Amino acid sequence: MSNIMLEEIHEQPEVLDRLFDEGWTRILGVGRALRAHGFRFVMLFARGTSDNAAYYGKYLIENLLGLPTALGSPSSFTLYGANLDLRDVLVVGISQSGESKDILESLRLTQRMGAVIVSVTNSESSSLAAIADYHLPLLAGSERSVAATKTYTAELLVLYLLVRAMGGKELLNEEERKLPDQIRQALGVEWIGTERYRYAEYMTVVSRGYNLATAKEAALKLMETNYLFASAFSAADLRHGPIAMIGDNFPVLAFVPPGKARLGMLELVNKLTSDNEAELLIVGDEEAMNPIASARFTVPESTSEALSPVLYAVPAQLLAEHLARTKGRNPDAPRGLNKVTETW
Amino acid sequence: MSNIMLEEIHEQPEVLDRLFDEGWTRILGVGRALRAHGFRFVMLFARGTSDNAAYYGKYLIENLLGLPTALGSPSSFTLYGANLDLRDVLVVGISQSGESKDILESLRLTQRMGAVIVSVTNSESSSLAAIADYHLPLLAGSERSVAATKTYTAELLVLYLLVRAMGGKELLNEEERKLPDQIRQALGVEWIGTERYRYAEYMTVVSRGYNLATAKEAALKLMETNYLFASAFSAADLRHGPIAMIGDNFPVLAFVPPGKARLGMLELVNKLTSDNEAELLIVGDEEAMNPIASARFTVPESTSEALSPVLYAVPAQLLAEHLARTKGRNPDAPRGLNKVTETW
Repeated sequence: MSNIMLEEIHEQPEVLDRLFDEGWTRILGVGRALRAHGFRFVMLFARGTSDNAAYYGKYLIENLLGLPTALGSPSSFTLYGANLDLRDVLVVGISQSGESKDILESLRLTQRMGAVIVSVTNSESSSLAAIADYHLPLLAGSERSVAATKTYTAELLVLYLLVRAMGGKELLNEEERKLPDQIRQALGVEWIGTERYRYAEYMTVVSRGYNLATAKEAALKLMETNYLFASAFSAADLRHGPIAMIGDNFPVLAFVPPGKARLGMLELVNKLTSDNEAELLIVGDEEAMNPIASARFTVPESTSEALSPVLYAVPAQLLAEHLARTKGRNPDAPRGLNKVTETW
Repeated sequence: MSNIMLEEIHEQPEVLDRLFDEGWTRILGVGRALRAHGFRFVMLFARGTSDNAAYYGKYLIENLLGLPTALGSPSSFTLYGANLDLRDVLVVGISQSGESKDILESLRLTQRMGAVIVSVTNSESSSLAAIADYHLPLLAGSERSVAATKTYTAELLVLYLLVRAMGGKELLNEEERKLPDQIRQALGVEWIGTERYRYAEYMTVVSRGYNLATAKEAALKLMETNYLFASAFSAADLRHGPIAMIGDNFPVLAFVPPGKARLGMLELVNKLTSDNEAELLIVGDEEAMNPIASARFTVPESTSEALSPVLYAVPAQLLAEHLARTKGRNPDAPRGLNKVTETW
């Protein structure tokens, strides 16, 4: 049996090192150029895994740059012909392949409406790279797995570095530079207790703030590789209705990140076990671990909250890969998916 | 057994008539005042059912007013202290109760950053009504059901009318005014074939464009009242990964709306039955009905695509209510939910 997805999961520290070592100069140049523009707001366009990266980007841009940020709806442009004044607006298109048709068309149309276009793709020769005013490559090497892993974390880091550069931060600090090693450490950790989910058919995934992106990406990976019906919620959105469905035995995968989202997540975890008797899978550092969790992944050394989604993506990927094999499924051959999805 | 949810579903034509008859003048006044502002963009804040109305609002505002629109992340403001320049920005807060704490705080903070605040609530005396520069009441009467129905469609219509007013449309046409009667007709239709879903534990819900809001609201209602794990996707997002999980017997509830989203939805329905052998529940007009659907709701007379989410919400609500009873559950008493959810 092939191990493409797992191999690419393990390539991530190397890809992230490359972005710090070789990617940063270019990102810094683009960041400087963009800073000079003085944008009014930012729109992000993406689909699938890249859309989860876009969620992360929204938090980064609003919180670290103070620029209002929207996740663009491609259909507003490709289907309904929305005509917006996008002068002094930054549009960022994210696509592993750089060939997503509706994202490409959204960038073309928003460019015509006055926006400055940045594209983030893994292919320098892609259509998205060609039409953008600025292109940032993921430097992730060829991704063969249908379920994207290394391009996802590369997208997150490129967005982080771009936001730092746009914010005038010209020097990366040691703390940031430790990320690839922290991911190396996390790759040495094993999930405990996942056998129990061999016959799970569905799972709720929850986190908060920056790591809502992690929850969404975990849900997508589980759907793609396990055919397990998964759905992600922010802690607050879960409480606004969906929590009603979570009763005895309902599996909930909770990402308890460091930083400001931590307290709310710990409270939710307590509520889910005491009031809802949920089955919990927890990802977090040692202090976040709850003895009641039936499965757990202990992140050995953490990082800042703003960078943590890159690190916390690793246990999400490992769970999807590992659980797929436990279920007797080949995560390298998801049913009915191609590497490039064409939607309109 | 009480029938509060069903009663309130049936009150909807009356509530919508009231908005047309008594609400329009006030909405028109607010729309005129807002038009004079010349906004750069719009941000919408909401949770739960109201957040689904906000999704609809995003399409309306972008496509009919040509203003870029973002769904705001309350935690950017309440947790991370984002500080944005929101001068000449319109912020719309939507909440049935008008007491959602994080929405209230998001409006307070964005107001301080320069935004003009419109709140849409069912209570004139609510906190959201009090702090807003302009308040629009839903005129839905007291909503006793925990699962919101009549306030949801009222939110949609208020947003539609506000956008029409802001677009300089001072007269409503006959086509628009027919909506309450079209909903009366839909309320006389019965779902066919739902018995089959007595033991369904999960369901995917899909639509496109304006009616992505309908799919999200259907999923939320099913979770709240049936404890059925439901998740909504746009047709494009479903194809970007999650479609892998949809195999033999997987139930998919598809809303096939009129207008520009129709063709893509018909194509997806065909693909789901031929390639994925999904079990289909279809909502659409007579022509959209697919003989392969195992359950169906035929919308008798349709309306414009932009207004159709108000009409298409009705079969979503009826399905949740009806299936809950088929499952022996009381939709009026969702486990662990209160009418006002307090999140921070």
